[in-house]
Amino acid sequence: MHLADEYRALKDAGRRDLGGVAVRNLLVLMTEQSHLFLRSAETKPLKSRVLDKSYVAFALGNKISRAVNAALFISDPAELAASLTAFADGSLARANPIGIQRTLYTLTMSFCAANDLWKVGDKKTPATYFEFLIGHLFAERLGVNPRKWIPVPGEARSSLPTDYIFELGPRRANFHLPVKLSTRERVIQAWAHQRVIDGIYGVKTYRGCLVVLAETKLDQKTLEVVEICLPLQWRVYQKYIAELWRIYYIDPPARYADLAGVKPIGVLYDELDAS
Amino acid sequence: MHLADEYRALKDAGRRDLGGVAVRNLLVLMTEQSHLFLRSAETKPLKSRVLDKSYVAFALGNKISRAVNAALFISDPAELAASLTAFADGSLARANPIGIQRTLYTLTMSFCAANDLWKVGDKKTPATYFEFLIGHLFAERLGVNPRKWIPVPGEARSSLPTDYIFELGPRRANFHLPVKLSTRERVIQAWAHQRVIDGIYGVKTYRGCLVVLAETKLDQKTLEVVEICLPLQWRVYQKYIAELWRIYYIDPPARYADLAGVKPIGVLYDELDAS
Repeated sequence: MHLADEYRALKDAGRRDLGGVAVRNLLVLMTEQSHLFLRSAETKPLKSRVLDKSYVAFALGNKISRAVNAALFISDPAELAASLTAFADGSLARANPIGIQRTLYTLTMSFCAANDLWKVGDKKTPATYFEFLIGHLFAERLGVNPRKWIPVPGEARSSLPTDYIFELGPRRANFHLPVKLSTRERVIQAWAHQRVIDGIYGVKTYRGCLVVLAETKLDQKTLEVVEICLPLQWRVYQKYIAELWRIYYIDPPARYADLAGVKPIGVLYDELDAS
Repeated sequence: MHLADEYRALKDAGRRDLGGVAVRNLLVLMTEQSHLFLRSAETKPLKSRVLDKSYVAFALGNKISRAVNAALFISDPAELAASLTAFADGSLARANPIGIQRTLYTLTMSFCAANDLWKVGDKKTPATYFEFLIGHLFAERLGVNPRKWIPVPGEARSSLPTDYIFELGPRRANFHLPVKLSTRERVIQAWAHQRVIDGIYGVKTYRGCLVVLAETKLDQKTLEVVEICLPLQWRVYQKYIAELWRIYYIDPPARYADLAGVKPIGVLYDELDAS
């Protein structure tokens, strides 16, 4: 089966049962195939302008992938196989935070970089894939599938489209889960939706959890990699629009480390289990 | 001078003095040249799925422009010349609302449609042109140039980038002016920024004025035109994020006519003069 077919299958399976084993198996299969494809491409070192991080890109003909954090991407096939097994059988949740982080980074980046070179789908495809991956993680761990809308009081048969909404019933936390490859695109929407949800249901009824891959930007001409960070805007959004409970990063920028709510993805399972 | 050069000149002049005569003259010149260019293209009737509106598109080779509202676009060169004269000498402000509306529609759509066929710039160019046109209108009429940021209290030397902010001093209204060709793209940002501004300065300190061209969408294959309206989302944003004072439309969708704050652009001059 071709990656584009698997991507369609992932969307179908995700709509039926996002937390289910069919989605998980497709994520594993797509990562294996993407990884195999990337191993046939050239690995190009990039010029990192980010302190203590080094990056590579995959290249094929005149095409080049996005920047890949060399320390987080699992390139060794044997190590990848072990990580995917842990993801598939659920034991990843008991791994150390770095192991969780590298596994989730590789599950995301293999498909994204393969799509850059091999154009599985359009520009939205990697963002949607990442949304399914993170949505699956939450759905599987919380034991409930999300919906993507909230009912609006006082409006007959009306609903507002949102990112994932997880409802866990009384005595447990509910979640509002926006997912982004980077916050450069439309991230203010995550805070604005949180504001609407807080306004309708009261603050702290739904925990806002923003999950972001990275803030990396590659200049295709100079092959320089930078991280684009706007900590002031974040503080303003947190203070004046709505407060997100967590902002989980798979590849966290150092400049965001001391912002309230920002955590590396490695602590996700522990925090969800405590919810 | 070529349209692309004039566009660069418009951006330069707009940054120096948005309300000034240099900007106005460039807007007139660019409209004249775009219109002349469009008259050499083919005019294609489109299939309107919008009640009481009919649309055409301009076509050249295998390229086709966006949908143009036939009743609002001034196609007659003599009528256009008179309208542009009224815009240039300021007498447009005393014209009837329909005349104001058709003039502003034609000032916008001539350049946008020409850019579709003749690729003056990238996809952002028409949006930026429209922002300069509407920003100029407000700056000229209010007698003050805007800035595009607000200072953030408690943050040393820090500012949040925003849409146009007009400050008129004590006893007069201030304005926050987001400008969009359609609300499909990132419009929630307008409400979220209004929320931040209300939070920092108090509600009703800055009047939120969203100016939108139209909600038209052309299917390039079937040549059908629809209007995409989401009145529920608007009501939710108005109620739970922040309240915009006005939403001015150059080509207002009938379905938005009874939403609070929505007005046709024809009343703009009168409302600004009363501010």
